[in-house]
Amino acid sequence: MIGKGGCTVSEACNSCSAAGTCTGESCSNEPKLTDAQKASHIDKIIAVMSGKGGVGKSSVTSMLAVSLMRQGYKVGILDADITGPSVPRIFGVTGRAGVSKTGILAPQSRDGIKLMSLNLMIETEDDPVILRGPLITQIVNQFYTEVVWGDLDYLLIDLPPGTGDVPITVFQSLPVDGVVMVTSPQSLANMVVRKAIKMVRNYKPPIYGLIENMAYVQCSDCNHRMEVFGKPQGKDEAERTNIPFLGELPLDPTLAQLSDAGKVEDYQSPVFDQIAKRLAEEIKKHSGEKLA
Amino acid sequence: MIGKGGCTVSEACNSCSAAGTCTGESCSNEPKLTDAQKASHIDKIIAVMSGKGGVGKSSVTSMLAVSLMRQGYKVGILDADITGPSVPRIFGVTGRAGVSKTGILAPQSRDGIKLMSLNLMIETEDDPVILRGPLITQIVNQFYTEVVWGDLDYLLIDLPPGTGDVPITVFQSLPVDGVVMVTSPQSLANMVVRKAIKMVRNYKPPIYGLIENMAYVQCSDCNHRMEVFGKPQGKDEAERTNIPFLGELPLDPTLAQLSDAGKVEDYQSPVFDQIAKRLAEEIKKHSGEKLA
Repeated sequence: MIGKGGCTVSEACNSCSAAGTCTGESCSNEPKLTDAQKASHIDKIIAVMSGKGGVGKSSVTSMLAVSLMRQGYKVGILDADITGPSVPRIFGVTGRAGVSKTGILAPQSRDGIKLMSLNLMIETEDDPVILRGPLITQIVNQFYTEVVWGDLDYLLIDLPPGTGDVPITVFQSLPVDGVVMVTSPQSLANMVVRKAIKMVRNYKPPIYGLIENMAYVQCSDCNHRMEVFGKPQGKDEAERTNIPFLGELPLDPTLAQLSDAGKVEDYQSPVFDQIAKRLAEEIKKHSGEKLA
Repeated sequence: MIGKGGCTVSEACNSCSAAGTCTGESCSNEPKLTDAQKASHIDKIIAVMSGKGGVGKSSVTSMLAVSLMRQGYKVGILDADITGPSVPRIFGVTGRAGVSKTGILAPQSRDGIKLMSLNLMIETEDDPVILRGPLITQIVNQFYTEVVWGDLDYLLIDLPPGTGDVPITVFQSLPVDGVVMVTSPQSLANMVVRKAIKMVRNYKPPIYGLIENMAYVQCSDCNHRMEVFGKPQGKDEAERTNIPFLGELPLDPTLAQLSDAGKVEDYQSPVFDQIAKRLAEEIKKHSGEKLA
């Protein structure tokens, strides 16, 4: 791939802030891969984004990881929500990440998903991380460059809400292959997700599709379907913004319980399996479009 | 109040980044009130915070504003969620904020609640705000110092999720009187809310109490009560963290519909009225403890 400055952009440029814009000359000072990066090979990086908080982005990221892992892929999750990390809790992973000469060692979930999250770096999981943007983005960058991910087919990045520092850094500095958008039925959530879609389009990675979470609740007593956040509008929203609609998910108390218990890997959802299948097709369509 | 540097901290210091830490000498260069601040008198500033996104912080802020307004108070909302603003949509306020010689004019809701939000400063509500922390916090500061709030009994600040730039700036630079915490039943949300509680305690404004939102859904067909996010645990959480428990709210489809339609001022909730009453008592207890 040729950068704006006319240079050849290689994988080695990924950790360089001037990647894609430097000239041949300045490139003589080539960005160096860290030992952790040399020890890792990540095939596809997928960012999961919503814009609005609380639409179940971390749940969707986790379910997606589980689904890919069940299909035999090697999967990692980079929890980029530094001030509100929830991935370790969902997988029941506690304790702290180890360190080797090569870099930070990503702990594994029960079934072998590699995880990195700020909550695996601190003493107590409810200690707050009171940091401003520059430090937060430095941590996110380190989770990519200093963690020994090893061989991964997929690295999923769980982005925090909003279109601020972390998503900017992830889209600018990490070689993201594509994005999965998550929304919930409220017009309000869709308004914010449209902001996120417009942001991603500024940075150009393809959007694989939109998932509408919490579309309805099924009464556990009478099976009545209730649209607690309003009428699902994900399909229309996807058409309007011209991205594939991957499907809708219910607000499922079982998932909440399993997530709280750190047992998301026990969750079975034929509905989500369908979504994961559609997503796999979309990823395949974009294969070879690596946007470093 | 005496600052760390030994100086006297006055209201005039609020807009100064060195407030509370400067020495008498550096204070000779006294921070000046803006024209907008001179034209405003705000009695109480309450920050609404959750740590985790999507627990209904903006809904609670809005309902609280409506409840105070119905009691005859003059109320404003500063939407500090710069990259995911939702307050104007909830109140059906569109268009852009005006400007006068004195400062930015906060648009009013149908029933007279003054609002300031990034979405009132941009052309199209779904345009993304792709800004890093320093600019975002500058905007939040300006929403306080450059907006002609006029006479207000209460200014509610709707904080974004997390414990990053915006909450840091709000607690460091604005004379917040107290904080309302919002959570939802998931242990995960409670873990993140504990981070927020610990953060607030670093900055010392009192926490008036905890509201547990989305505690249950009532089936519209058979009235069965479902705890879709798991067993409510707000009361226990409040006891554990030693803050007053203000009450629990259902996940109410009517509120979602009215919020989407911009008609939150039509929402009636006896349950919330009780919560607002308890909150008023807590605020009264802390009166006179202004923490500039």
